[in-house]
Amino acid sequence: MRLRNKPWAVKLVNDHPEAVLQDPDPDVKINWNERFTDFSRPLEIEVGSGKGKFITEKAKAHPERNYVAIELQTTAAGIILRTKLEEKLDNLQILRGDAALLAKYFGESVCDVLYLNFSDPWPKARHEKRRLTYKSFLDQYKTVLKDEGHLEFKTDNAGLYGYSLQSMNNYGMHFDFVSVDLHHEAPEILANNVETEYEHKFSSKGNPIYAVWGNFRV
Amino acid sequence: MRLRNKPWAVKLVNDHPEAVLQDPDPDVKINWNERFTDFSRPLEIEVGSGKGKFITEKAKAHPERNYVAIELQTTAAGIILRTKLEEKLDNLQILRGDAALLAKYFGESVCDVLYLNFSDPWPKARHEKRRLTYKSFLDQYKTVLKDEGHLEFKTDNAGLYGYSLQSMNNYGMHFDFVSVDLHHEAPEILANNVETEYEHKFSSKGNPIYAVWGNFRV
Repeated sequence: MRLRNKPWAVKLVNDHPEAVLQDPDPDVKINWNERFTDFSRPLEIEVGSGKGKFITEKAKAHPERNYVAIELQTTAAGIILRTKLEEKLDNLQILRGDAALLAKYFGESVCDVLYLNFSDPWPKARHEKRRLTYKSFLDQYKTVLKDEGHLEFKTDNAGLYGYSLQSMNNYGMHFDFVSVDLHHEAPEILANNVETEYEHKFSSKGNPIYAVWGNFRV
Repeated sequence: MRLRNKPWAVKLVNDHPEAVLQDPDPDVKINWNERFTDFSRPLEIEVGSGKGKFITEKAKAHPERNYVAIELQTTAAGIILRTKLEEKLDNLQILRGDAALLAKYFGESVCDVLYLNFSDPWPKARHEKRRLTYKSFLDQYKTVLKDEGHLEFKTDNAGLYGYSLQSMNNYGMHFDFVSVDLHHEAPEILANNVETEYEHKFSSKGNPIYAVWGNFRV
């Protein structure tokens, strides 16, 4: 979702370099130890956070874990940052950067859970490589995830979901959980489910939410 | 789907041993060469054929291939047999037997395509082993399928579909095609799609049809 540019958001982001990394040089190692109180805590990353409802709720609910919101748009990063500052979420960092550089940003085996929520479906075949479940992105996720880590993917888009299941399967991922109607058939998962803005909107219209959790263990 | 017992069907089945194998001894090799004009033709098997709309349409459309309908219920077998006789489908055999014995019935590497259409969902966890995508059944399919063969699974049941995707993935199957809305997003597949009785009923109500094609190549 492209947001209208908000000048206040740009200013806020620029005023808080301690909270938002903007387009960092991929060849310079990011010092995450400096940016979190305790970087040895479990780390969870959301790729494509939008306005950040999901990741800020997660960060608030789990002060014992660290969170990184990856989001390219400055306005969206500013909206996440505003929530972070209001809620004093010391365990949340924002990275305005490219998911294709995830391995450069984080290095190997640091992440416990990686979230893809309602990613852009890029429905045209010629845009396949931009879909966040294309194999080149799976390479990135595999690198940053710990051996015992896993990926959680949710979408309302049937095309992206079918594509992603096939892409993940063909890549060799192991599925831990699959549901084509998350809100009506997985009460044990739903009890801990944090909704994104999209998810709330679509599920309240009665549309199914598709989900798959998987890992890269061999 | 359990059908009401029809005496005519029982009689018809009993009158045609050349067309219907009834509960064959799993330890005696079935002579398929005797039952088909040319058993070297491509072989397609449907597990759980119900009244046989799908497999009889397939057999009619492809006289150059052989078909076997596996169906436990005698009444259903009788309905398939009636169509076979009316349509003179020499390339279709009916096997009233148990899918758990598929490898015994067929031996290794003989089948080109195996179909599972709208199988019983067995929703209770304690009935998991009865679902036709449980790993013990996948063992059977893997055995009878040729290396270049594949499985085609369709259902309208969200629970069975999610379960099956996970079970097939965890078994090591490779997905060739995945769709959570077959009738609206896969025109190239749909052009060759033969509907089952269930499929027609559910899709005409606007319910999504879920599909996955996969193979056991390593």
